[in-house]
Order: sequence, then structure tokens, then C-alpha cells
Amino acid sequence: MRILVLGGDGYLGWPTAMYLSTHGHVVEVVDNFAKRRWEMELNVEPLMPIRTLHDRVSAWQEVTGQKIELFVGDLRNYELVLQAFEAFKPEAIVHYGEQPSAPYSMIDHSRAVFTQMNNLAGTLNVLWAMRERCPAAHLVKLGTMGEYGTPNIDIEEGFIEIEYKGRKDILPFPKQPGSFYHLTKVHDSHNILFACKVWKLRSTDLNQGVVYGTTTAETALDETLVNRFDYDEVFGTVLNRFCVQAAIGHPLTVYGRGGQTRGFLDIRDTVRCVELACLQPAAPGECRVFNQFTEQFSVLDIARHVQTAAAKLGLAVEVDHLPDPRVEAEQHYYNAKHSRLIDMGLQPHLLSDSLLDSLMNIALQYRDRIDTTMLLPTVDWRNGSNDRRAQRKPATVGVY
Amino acid sequence: MRILVLGGDGYLGWPTAMYLSTHGHVVEVVDNFAKRRWEMELNVEPLMPIRTLHDRVSAWQEVTGQKIELFVGDLRNYELVLQAFEAFKPEAIVHYGEQPSAPYSMIDHSRAVFTQMNNLAGTLNVLWAMRERCPAAHLVKLGTMGEYGTPNIDIEEGFIEIEYKGRKDILPFPKQPGSFYHLTKVHDSHNILFACKVWKLRSTDLNQGVVYGTTTAETALDETLVNRFDYDEVFGTVLNRFCVQAAIGHPLTVYGRGGQTRGFLDIRDTVRCVELACLQPAAPGECRVFNQFTEQFSVLDIARHVQTAAAKLGLAVEVDHLPDPRVEAEQHYYNAKHSRLIDMGLQPHLLSDSLLDSLMNIALQYRDRIDTTMLLPTVDWRNGSNDRRAQRKPATVGVY
Repeated sequence: MRILVLGGDGYLGWPTAMYLSTHGHVVEVVDNFAKRRWEMELNVEPLMPIRTLHDRVSAWQEVTGQKIELFVGDLRNYELVLQAFEAFKPEAIVHYGEQPSAPYSMIDHSRAVFTQMNNLAGTLNVLWAMRERCPAAHLVKLGTMGEYGTPNIDIEEGFIEIEYKGRKDILPFPKQPGSFYHLTKVHDSHNILFACKVWKLRSTDLNQGVVYGTTTAETALDETLVNRFDYDEVFGTVLNRFCVQAAIGHPLTVYGRGGQTRGFLDIRDTVRCVELACLQPAAPGECRVFNQFTEQFSVLDIARHVQTAAAKLGLAVEVDHLPDPRVEAEQHYYNAKHSRLIDMGLQPHLLSDSLLDSLMNIALQYRDRIDTTMLLPTVDWRNGSNDRRAQRKPATVGVY
Repeated sequence: MRILVLGGDGYLGWPTAMYLSTHGHVVEVVDNFAKRRWEMELNVEPLMPIRTLHDRVSAWQEVTGQKIELFVGDLRNYELVLQAFEAFKPEAIVHYGEQPSAPYSMIDHSRAVFTQMNNLAGTLNVLWAMRERCPAAHLVKLGTMGEYGTPNIDIEEGFIEIEYKGRKDILPFPKQPGSFYHLTKVHDSHNILFACKVWKLRSTDLNQGVVYGTTTAETALDETLVNRFDYDEVFGTVLNRFCVQAAIGHPLTVYGRGGQTRGFLDIRDTVRCVELACLQPAAPGECRVFNQFTEQFSVLDIARHVQTAAAKLGLAVEVDHLPDPRVEAEQHYYNAKHSRLIDMGLQPHLLSDSLLDSLMNIALQYRDRIDTTMLLPTVDWRNGSNDRRAQRKPATVGVY
């Protein structure tokens, strides 16, 4: 299958591109390196050095003999999106090409508006370019479980049958996103559903949980193919950050009471889920939604898991409860369905001690590059302007 | 009360500004004349000549002795929004300042993306500027009943109590908007709800039905204060367009079967509803939603009403069923609640023969300015590019 991966330089985009390439697909990646620029802007960097995308695709060919095509461009430029679709003729378009961080979107006015304009314009351009150039292609769009918020009822996969005053309908599940970033995913979902309805496009909206891990079978093939491991408070995901903290004996930074419960999944399941969605596409006009995670944990559960794994390695770590910089329920009901990808063939990698060991060992290996000033939350949802420069010293720069 | 009216040059903004000014409020209007530019772009114009906004506010002072302040600026310019809020110190902000047409948003890619970028950026800037300059002010935002679509259950006012598998919650009513324009109102609603939650802003989201009429007590005071009467297929609302059609013996252009049912209200109720919302503001952190309409009709009901009223004036008009250019249900259940504004004191002007007479008399008076090429739908939701220039001759230009 011909698969175009938008945002193919990212934490999930690059491993997905390699996974699809080894599994018999013809793959092209599109990126404008915006994520690397946002890191420079905030003076943060991933734990391990990563290669440029040009180097990555060259290395991929050297290591595996497989070719991943590279198209450099910004999804906000409609002409470029049209060109990319016309030239590659994708059967599936995997769309990771958005600003991916909730804290980034909450830094200040300009980041909030930028995040919404960037994510919406890119996805609108993708939808229109599909309509114009490849209306039979299947859009596999990355959303987030954060679109749903934490309702006091079970969370279904995208739609819910509501019985109300003696009448019934199946309607989009009500959304209660918790940041300007999460809002973009909700807006995208509404835009995509509409485009499928009026133009008969095919789409799968993957409402993904919090991803952990950094290594897949492909990233492990060669040092040049290594994936990014973000552990900073803006771009890092919670379990990855806790493992880094544990590796250096830093207290685990739980926000508030830690009862915030979310869906989680291993990065190896992310890449498989995306392939499953591609292989079994939505029908014309269908916008289906899968909840893409494998297990639910509270943040405090995650901290306890990491603490236990650390203890086995002889590392004593404490759990710190910091004032929650986000505006969210710290204790709540949470029961989210996630059976559709399992039904399609996903065999989950559940959270294990060996995964935690492996993450902590990576952190130990690169401990000289860990910048502890990147670990504490500096973006407060209630503030209008979070001047991170004033709160942090310049990042430690490792040897590239 | 100090009330800032964003989009104060528009079909609803200008009558609202005058109404509030005569009812004891200190009023400033903000506009960038974008609507007038979009009309030039499409070569359409309102039925009656209207004055510039500068002339309107001058005339208002001459006629009534009251002053309406004028601030010219684009809401996408954050610095200007900050300045406007800082200088005027509004207690309420009435926000009409968006691209208001569903067909306009469906013309082509550039209008679709423009509509979303324009409406979202403007409203995000308003929210941030409120946070920074007037966090105690009350946002009265114009949304649309079209946010809900046509679900097979009763439509509540913004939120619905859902009982599901033995648990309950009150959640945002699921949204199923029918155009890129309607989608912007849904996106705004989600953004506003979030801003109220994190920053404790006050907001009232008015999900308005289809407005008809053009005259209010204030527009009738003097010819210089006349309101716009849009009857073209892009910016005109259905009942106004039918009255123009009836006045010249043009068949009434019902899209499809005409069973599309919507909420409707008289423009005199729009201005009163907005004042009611201002006078009884939301609490800090509250984002309340009112469904702002007074009666439900199907499009065919509306056509029959106009046909009957026309017959009384000796005008024989036919009803034409055109292929529906929109993607929407042509027959459906519809029962939308609209009691909150009534509870607050609204005394509705229900659709009457005298109102229809008055609209048709206006149309007869200005019949030489009616451009019949502006009446037929040329924007097809299913098309990717609706070249209206190719389908229409240049508009008839009346004497200004």
C-alpha cells in the first residue's frame, strides 16, 4: 500500500514510517521540521541525539535496502499539499503533522493562536487536497483521548447512542478538551466528520492515549535510526519523564493528587494500530473513530510503577505532589472503551517491568545529557503568559 | 452599561448598537468592513443603499443626540483588540464580528480556510484580550442553531443530561454542523467554554436561529439609519429572500423537498435578546448557552406563508423545488428548546402577515435594484470550486 506519513520526522511519525516500510508498504514522509524549531525556541532537546530527517532516510536505505521518500514542506501551504498528493498518489495518508503539545499551546497568547491556526489550516488543506487529488485515499488522523475530557459516564469510541425523552440517536460523543492543543483535535474531528459527509472521503480518527517508550524493532536496527525521547515538561509524555527522573534520583513530579486517569499505550502499539487502520480502511463517506490505547492508569499509578521498577535497580525515588499547573479534575470516574483496534488484530504490549527497565537504562546511559531544569512544570494553564526563559537557565547542551 | 459591539456595521450589529444606545447604554462599535468587501468580491449588494459606518454613527448623533463610538479594526490583529478593550473598558462585549455565511464558506478552498482562520483567530483574540484587559466583562457571543444539526432527539440549550449505562452527566450537546462556517461556530463554542473554565471568564453563547426582517424602531427613525437587507443566495437569509422573490413574481427557491426545519426569529427580537443577555450576565466561569429563536418552521412552511401573504397583495408566486445544493436532511425530526430567553423577559414578535407585507413592500419599493441573478443557488456543497463569476452576469448597480 502507498502510505504518506505527514509529520514523518516526529516521535511517532518516524517509527511509523519505518514500521510501514518494513511491512511491505511504499512510504513517503512529509515534514517541515517545525517540532525541532519549537524545541530550539524553548531551549529543550531530546534525551538522545537524533539525526536529521535527510540522514534518517539515507540511513534507512543503507541499513535495510528499503527506500522512504522525503518531501519537505509545510501543510499550511496548500499548493505544496496538492503537489505532494498528486506526485505520490497515496492510498492512505497518516496524519501526525500538527503541533503536539498541550503545555506548548498554553504558554501564551501567541502559542495558543499559533497552535490552533497551524493545526486547523494543515488539516483543512489535507482534506481539500484529498478531495481534489486523491478522493479515494484513506485519511488516518491522529487525535487524542484528551478530546473527551473526563465525563462521568463511559467513554465510547467517537459516537454514543443517546436515549432522551423517548427518542434515540447515535451522535458524536460530547467533547470536553483541556487545552488549546486538545481543542484543535476536537475542531479537526468536527471538520473531518463534515468532509467525509459532504465529499464521501474515508477517514479513521485515532483518539490516542498517552504514548510511552521510544524503541521499536526498527529504531533498534541501527544507532542512526534512533527515535526521539522527549522528557521535558512541554513535549515529554508523563511515563517517559518519570523514567528519566527515576534514573537520576529526581522526585517523580505528580501534578496535584495524581488521580488523573488516562489511557496509555506502548509506542510499538501505536505503529501497529496505524498499520491496522490503513489495512482495513474506512468506507467512502465513513468517519470512524477508534480509541487507541491499551490500559488505563492514574498518574499516581504510573508513578508507583516507576518507583517499584526503580527500586529493583537499586534506585530510591520519591513522589512529589506539585500544585497542578493544569485545570483538570484530580479525581474522577474514567472508563473508556478501546475494543475496536483489538477486534482488528492488535496484540497489546502491556506496561511491563522490562519496558520500564529499558527506559531507565536508556536514561542512565544518557544521564549526562539530562537537564533537570526541563523537568519541572513552568507552564501554568491559569497564566496568560508563561515566560519560561525567566524560570530556566539555558539548557545543557550535549555532544551531538 | 458599557457595551462594545464587535461587527457593529453588520445586519445585526448595527441595529443592536442603535437599540442599546437608545436603551441607556454607552456603546462602541468595532468593524473592519470585511462584509462590504466580501460583497464586492462576489458582486452582490443589499437591496437598499446603506451608508458607511462613519456616516451612520454621525447620523445617529444628529438624529438622536446619542453618541456611538467607532473603532475601526480587524479582530485578527491582537494588538488592536487589546487597545480597543483597554480604551473602552467594556462591561459587556457583543460579538458579531465573524464571516457569517454558510454558502460563502463553501465556495472553494480559499473561502473555507479563510472563514475558519478568520472566525477562530478573532474569537481567540477576544478571549485572550478579555483575560488580559477586562476579565470581569461578559462576552455575549453569537453562535447559531446550525451548530446542533438535526439530531433525532430534542435539542436542549447547549448542554444535555445524559444517562448512560447507569451513570449520569451533564455534557455539551453533541454538535453536527453543516458547513465550514457552521463549524467555526462549533469551534468557537468549544474554545469559549474552555476559556471560561480556565480563566473564569463570563460568557453567553447565543445559538441563534434564522433572522428575518430588516426594520427595527431605530432603523426606522431616519433614512440614514436604514439597515442592510441581503437577499442574495450567499448572504441573504431565507425568509428575506422569499419576500424579494414574491415581490417580483419570481418563484420561491425551496432547496429540495423543503422539509428542512429551523428556528426563526424577527430581527427586533435579536436586538432585545442581546440586551437581555447583557443585563443579566453569566457568572464568573460560567459559559451558558441560550437558543435564540421564537418559532420553528420548515422551509416549505416559510414558502407557504410568503405565498399566502403575496396572494393578499395580488401577487401570484410559485414555489420551485430546486435540487438541494447543501448536504442536509430534507425531512427530519426537529424539536429545539428555547425557553431561557423567554424566562428572562423576551416578548416575541411572532411571524405575522404585517411583517411579511412590510418586507414585500420594501422589496416593491426597491424592485429596480433587485438583481435576479443573485437569487438562484450557485454554491454547491459537493463541489470543490464554485466559480460564481462564470454563472452570473455582473450585478445591476443601483443609484447609491
